[in-house]
Amino acid sequence: MYAVIMAGGKGTRFWPRSREKMPKHLLDILNDKTIIRQTVDRITPLIPPERILIVTASSHVDVLFEQVPDIPRENILIEPVGRNTAPCIGLAALHLRRRAPGAVMVVLPADHSIEKGDRFRHILAAAAETARKEACLVTVGIVPTGPETGYGYLEKGERVGQVLGEDVYKVRSFREKPKIEQAEAFLRQGGYLWNSGMFVWKASVILDAIALHLPRVYDRLRDIEDALDTPEEPTVLDRAYRSMEPISIDYGVMEKSKHVLVLGGDFGWSDVGSWDALWEITAKNDKGNAFRGEGPFVDIDTRNSLIISPKKLVALVGVEDLVVVETGDALLICRRGNSQTVKRVVETIEAEKWTEYL
Amino acid sequence: MYAVIMAGGKGTRFWPRSREKMPKHLLDILNDKTIIRQTVDRITPLIPPERILIVTASSHVDVLFEQVPDIPRENILIEPVGRNTAPCIGLAALHLRRRAPGAVMVVLPADHSIEKGDRFRHILAAAAETARKEACLVTVGIVPTGPETGYGYLEKGERVGQVLGEDVYKVRSFREKPKIEQAEAFLRQGGYLWNSGMFVWKASVILDAIALHLPRVYDRLRDIEDALDTPEEPTVLDRAYRSMEPISIDYGVMEKSKHVLVLGGDFGWSDVGSWDALWEITAKNDKGNAFRGEGPFVDIDTRNSLIISPKKLVALVGVEDLVVVETGDALLICRRGNSQTVKRVVETIEAEKWTEYL
Repeated sequence: MYAVIMAGGKGTRFWPRSREKMPKHLLDILNDKTIIRQTVDRITPLIPPERILIVTASSHVDVLFEQVPDIPRENILIEPVGRNTAPCIGLAALHLRRRAPGAVMVVLPADHSIEKGDRFRHILAAAAETARKEACLVTVGIVPTGPETGYGYLEKGERVGQVLGEDVYKVRSFREKPKIEQAEAFLRQGGYLWNSGMFVWKASVILDAIALHLPRVYDRLRDIEDALDTPEEPTVLDRAYRSMEPISIDYGVMEKSKHVLVLGGDFGWSDVGSWDALWEITAKNDKGNAFRGEGPFVDIDTRNSLIISPKKLVALVGVEDLVVVETGDALLICRRGNSQTVKRVVETIEAEKWTEYL
Repeated sequence: MYAVIMAGGKGTRFWPRSREKMPKHLLDILNDKTIIRQTVDRITPLIPPERILIVTASSHVDVLFEQVPDIPRENILIEPVGRNTAPCIGLAALHLRRRAPGAVMVVLPADHSIEKGDRFRHILAAAAETARKEACLVTVGIVPTGPETGYGYLEKGERVGQVLGEDVYKVRSFREKPKIEQAEAFLRQGGYLWNSGMFVWKASVILDAIALHLPRVYDRLRDIEDALDTPEEPTVLDRAYRSMEPISIDYGVMEKSKHVLVLGGDFGWSDVGSWDALWEITAKNDKGNAFRGEGPFVDIDTRNSLIISPKKLVALVGVEDLVVVETGDALLICRRGNSQTVKRVVETIEAEKWTEYL
């Protein structure tokens, strides 16, 4: 049993904390550990560091080495350019098929928040057991806690059995991020789960599925496989990646496959996809204000705000629903609920070529 | 003709820019000059630096020397403790009566904003001419531009004549800061002016008025006068000040005097008494946002806000009516219209003994 952590994200939605050189999973925005460090720590009781692979971009590899020194360097796979999740997962599967034929791989995003680690590991163990027995694609869907419109959904089909006490279902359909009315209908009807981006399968099974549904991606992966551990490996890897089209594993494989199973996850999951989401999961005072910083904090007639300022005294007067993030060179103040708009700030910075702030 | 600039203010309402050691008049919050520098520059075409006196607190005197090196040091009078405007004006009048018997003194707050310098100086010249001819107290009232509740008002009485083309009126009554309905009534009725805190009179006349209406203050001033230029001067000054009750010239003298004349001032005056007032008089972009800083500024769906951040890139998304002030050690975010509440922040800081932020 291996873990593959996908750490290729850019995280522009966490600007100004996240930067080109410092994406979300390398930040300590959840607590005093960085998110990738938490992700590794969360999985190690189930899978030891020598069987954890991390796929990342070359621009982040040095910081990554510092943050997870317990992961062997040969387990860190570097993508020359980002091509979404299908090539990323395919690359890791290649390496694993060679290293341990028949290995089950647990694919995890680098940057999620999970409250109940024990429950999380139990579900993953059950999913791995399912994937070991059945030559099929397994995913973990999150039991919804509200009509979220920021997540994709999947519809449960027939229950196929129970593994380690957990029900396993067929997936009937995948659904794009819904509008609010649709999301409310999903919750009312029941039988829908959030798409978490967590997958469990044998390396050989996902590679066969890629070969079937994404043959051009698979051809490039074969080029890479042929060059592994040869002097040509870097050149071939680079050329292969640049010629692949970016495509997600969900869209490219999962939605097309007829043999997807799902287990429901109820372990306090959040994808922490925005400052808004961070406010939701952060401890707040009795006025709903969450302050992260070492300086004093004064809130007068102020409610439901998130404030991140490492050192300064921060005083808020008569405001509500604000996200305030201060760094050494930038200050963001955003209405809570608008934090998806932060990417427009990053686009403006790109357009104006204020590159030191990217 | 002499000028006396009262520079004893604390300016807690401009926290976090204003601090105990750096009150409002020593800050460059209006433009690239500090406010006291502007006040001195505004008056010098009428009154040269050697005839400008500044009354200040000992804790600010070093910065003041740096900011107005053209004012002779012997013209800077230091109050041991603040005792409001009556003792301050009395102290300056003592010095002037000795230095230039019969001198007319123009009393100016240190920290006002005035758009039309020429017009301002013309009104002061007319007020000084009035004070020279008549042994009376002269004040400059501001022609109201709206029903402000943050200023005191004075009611014009009988017109007594014209000096340098300016109408001069008796003052019928002084009015405390009104509620909004009252302020609106003042504007509707006409004949009301804002109390600007600018006064013009002979030194001997105001000292006689203090002797009449504030005899205990006058006694202490006489103690100081007797000790001037003796080795006891510092000790006597200190003792006299500490034993004086704090009282304003308005409440202690002007409101009790029957011989107050007033000229109307229409020179774009503001007392810049709060961050709100600063937003009012600062140049704004087409969304009503005023940004003071060297870094880039991004405003998306953001309106009618004031942002002061010396160096950082500042990005505002989906907010309105905010006052944002960042300094090296503090960050204030306040709803515009609430900026009087900033003093509650300072009170909290005092109560918590976070003295480095005062």
